[in-house]
Parts: sequence; C-alpha cells; structure tokens
Amino acid sequence: MSDSRPIGIFDSGMGGLTAVKEVIRALPYERIVYFGDTARVPYGPKSRETVIRFSIENILFLLKYKVKLIIIACNTASSVALSIARKNFKVPIIGVISPGVDEAVRVTKNKRIGVIGTRTTINSQTYEKMIKQQSPKIKVYSAECPLFVPLVEVGWLNTQITKQVAGLYLLPLKSKKIDTIVLGCTHYPLLKPVIKEILGQGVTLVDSARQVAMQAKEILIRQRLLAPKKNRGEGNLRFYVSDEPDNFAELGKRFLGFDLKNVRKVSNV
Amino acid sequence: MSDSRPIGIFDSGMGGLTAVKEVIRALPYERIVYFGDTARVPYGPKSRETVIRFSIENILFLLKYKVKLIIIACNTASSVALSIARKNFKVPIIGVISPGVDEAVRVTKNKRIGVIGTRTTINSQTYEKMIKQQSPKIKVYSAECPLFVPLVEVGWLNTQITKQVAGLYLLPLKSKKIDTIVLGCTHYPLLKPVIKEILGQGVTLVDSARQVAMQAKEILIRQRLLAPKKNRGEGNLRFYVSDEPDNFAELGKRFLGFDLKNVRKVSNV
Repeated sequence: MSDSRPIGIFDSGMGGLTAVKEVIRALPYERIVYFGDTARVPYGPKSRETVIRFSIENILFLLKYKVKLIIIACNTASSVALSIARKNFKVPIIGVISPGVDEAVRVTKNKRIGVIGTRTTINSQTYEKMIKQQSPKIKVYSAECPLFVPLVEVGWLNTQITKQVAGLYLLPLKSKKIDTIVLGCTHYPLLKPVIKEILGQGVTLVDSARQVAMQAKEILIRQRLLAPKKNRGEGNLRFYVSDEPDNFAELGKRFLGFDLKNVRKVSNV
Repeated sequence: MSDSRPIGIFDSGMGGLTAVKEVIRALPYERIVYFGDTARVPYGPKSRETVIRFSIENILFLLKYKVKLIIIACNTASSVALSIARKNFKVPIIGVISPGVDEAVRVTKNKRIGVIGTRTTINSQTYEKMIKQQSPKIKVYSAECPLFVPLVEVGWLNTQITKQVAGLYLLPLKSKKIDTIVLGCTHYPLLKPVIKEILGQGVTLVDSARQVAMQAKEILIRQRLLAPKKNRGEGNLRFYVSDEPDNFAELGKRFLGFDLKNVRKVSNV
C-alpha cells in the first residue's frame, strides 16, 4: 500500500519552512505542497476569530491539491484553529502544539517547563492546558515574545539587540528554574543560538518543527499513506504564497538551507 | 455651500490614527470614517502589487459610506497605490507622501533631506523622485526602518532597545548632515522623542500626518466641501477594522489620546 498524494503544509508566512525542512528529512519520498499566507502575515498579533478564518481558508486551498495530510505549521493557527478544523474536515490534520507538548513532557526532569510564543498563542493558554492534561504536576511558565518574529524577518538572528530583547523575554523564565523550553513559534528555531546563550546549557530547547515531522511520519505509517519510493524528484516541493514570490524565495533559503524553486503566487485570499 | 458627507481615511492598521488626530484638529466639524486593515497589517514588508490590491479594496469599502474625500493615511499604500487610485476613482484622493515632500522642501536650508520608511516605501523611491521633481538640487538620503513598526506596536516607544535600533537606522543619515527628516510612516510620530534624541536639535522632523490634514482642509475649502458647523457630535468618528476591534480600541488610545468609541469589525476583506 502506498499513496502518492502530497502532504499539505501551511503557515502564516515562511516560518513553517522549518517544518518543511524536518518533513523532508523524515519523509524524503513525500511530495509537499506548502502555502504561506504572506499577504496577511503575521498571525501572531491577530485575534482568535481572524486566525481561525484564515486557517480554514488555507485548508480549503490545500484541499484543492488532494493532500492526504495537513500540517498546520504555525503555532498561532494550531493553538486556536486545530480543534475546529479537525471537527470540520475529513483529512487528517496535525498541528505543531501537541508534538511539542509530548516532547517537552518527555524530556523535563524537574517538571518546570517554559513556553514562548506569539501573543495570541500565549493568550490561548493551549500549551499550558495540554501540558497540564498530560501531567498536572508540571509547572508551566509562559512568555510572549512579540519582537522575535520581526527580528527573524529582518534577518537579525544574532545581533546585540536580538540578544538584549531575548534577555528581556527569557530571563524571567530562567529565574523560574525551567529545564525545558518549548519554542512555540516556527520562527524561533532560527534564534536557537541566542536562546541557548541566555538560558544556558541546562535548558533543553524543544523545537516543534522536528516533532511534528515525526508525528506526520507515524500517521502516514499507521494509516498506510506513505508515498512510493520512486516518487522522489524536482517537482516534489511546491510553494504557494499570497504575496509576491520573490521575497519568499529569497528569505526561504535562510530557513531551508537550499534554493526554493516552484514558488508561485495565488490570489485566492 | 456645505457638504456633510464624511471624510474617508484608511491605513493598514492603526498608524493612520495619527492622521485622524490631525484632521480632527484642523477640521473639527467633519465626520470621519476610518478603516484600519488590521487583519492584513502590516503593508510595509509586502509587495507593490499586493499593497495596490488591498488599497483598492479599502477605497471601495470607504465609498460605501459616500465619502467626499479619501485620505490614504499609510505611506506604503500612498507610495505605490495613490496614482493608480486617482486614475480610477472620481472621489478626490490624497496620500501622505506629497504633503510631507512639500513641507520638507520648504523647511530644508542646507538642501539635505533624510527620509525614513518601511521597506516597500523606501524601495519605491517615491519620496526621492517627488523631492527631486520639486527641487533637483536637493540631496535625499533614505533608510528603511523595518523594526520601527513592531516596536511601536508592542509599545516600546522610549526603551533602551528602541534607542539602539533607532541609532543603527539613523546615525548613517545623521552623518550625511541632513537638516530635515521626513517620518515616512504613520507609526513613526510616536517615536519622535527617540528620533529627536539621536538626530539632535539641528534636524527638523516632518510629520506627514499633520501636513496631510492641512492639505485636506485646503481641498475642502477650494472645492466648497466643508461640513456645516452644526455637524459636531458623538457620531462624528466611526472606526472600522478587519480584525477584532478590542485591541484596536485599546492601542488606538495611544495614538489619539482619547478613548475610541464606535469601533466595529467588518468582514469584507
């Protein structure tokens, strides 16, 4: 049994490319259709209702490509739209929250977990609730980091200013003696060096992009939806964006580590 | 002769409220309908084509309220969409670029003007071209300041980090010995204290919000479109946004200096 339909992945912009990178690594034979809503990015500061509406529209877009699985590779969208999306659509849909939660709960030793994300993600308290569901004794400390996304998008990954901003956001968490931190936004893996520097070696960084790729693999194996091995090739990756593709292709390289071909603009949103 | 129809003002989000404030001051009897495209904010990093599309949609929205004049209170939208909008619509439309250009050309003594704005505004070179049209001998030095909008939106108006970011953006302009700087984004007037501190007393800050209000007044007088004086009252200001209104109302206070009533969400975009 095999299934050559693509995996659909969407994000508010290009942050979800961190998930694409991990899916390529975990599932090298799969075709991927990515949608980045670059005309309406970012989702982080926007309301729950608006993020849900955008997410539903993005799923409808991906369904046109007959995807066999959808990954919501945006923590903000996952935190507010995943359960509603699952209720309404038949296609299996996974988000980046629960894989990160599973991993954080698995690795913490002192039962003190930090969570960082956008304003809407942190306000939703989705991480906190899901961690508590799994292990009510774990203490969760959250912090919104609204300037991290703009800093990544201007390419200031390791500047003095980025370090200072990170210090302001992260030192209060460090003082809570967390031993694990969930990077609750797909942009944040690009700030790993700075985050590690501030939190020190004793804190494990949980990168949900990596975890969601593992969960996708499990689902495809369990539901017998893996692609045939012959499926590899140039056309395996297709990128759609709602704004012009040039900037996306250029910055996307920073996330994926290779040149992006097949980036096209769609005007459906 | 008088005309009680409202003035329409739009912006990508809430930055345009700096123009609203000045229009209220200059034209206290006018009704105002404001649209903030908060579901798709910001426009600054987005492409010319997308910003034009959004701007046309926003104008069509304002026209439903039978506005007698439209102010594009967003420098990014003004820089790429104003001329196209004027070609297509009968309603008088003004942007925030030319009022800022007029004022900068008027006040500069040493003929060295700085312009700061978003990436799309600076890339469009609209300011530079318009200044050169008026006075070819003036030297124009431009700088994109992509972190200024996020800094204003998180409320870091006068922090150490904001000062450092401003230093990185502005010191290269200062070294060019400019005596005038155009704040080419409606968010920037909130950073005036920091910008003044870095550039020093010798540099005049040109705030296009104030200038556009003056231009609006001139047009209304010339075309005999001023509102009757009796028109003052509660319902004079109406705010529409594409995302949830609560955050807009809360942050809007920072721009206007008073509580915003009549903020409603519209789902047309």
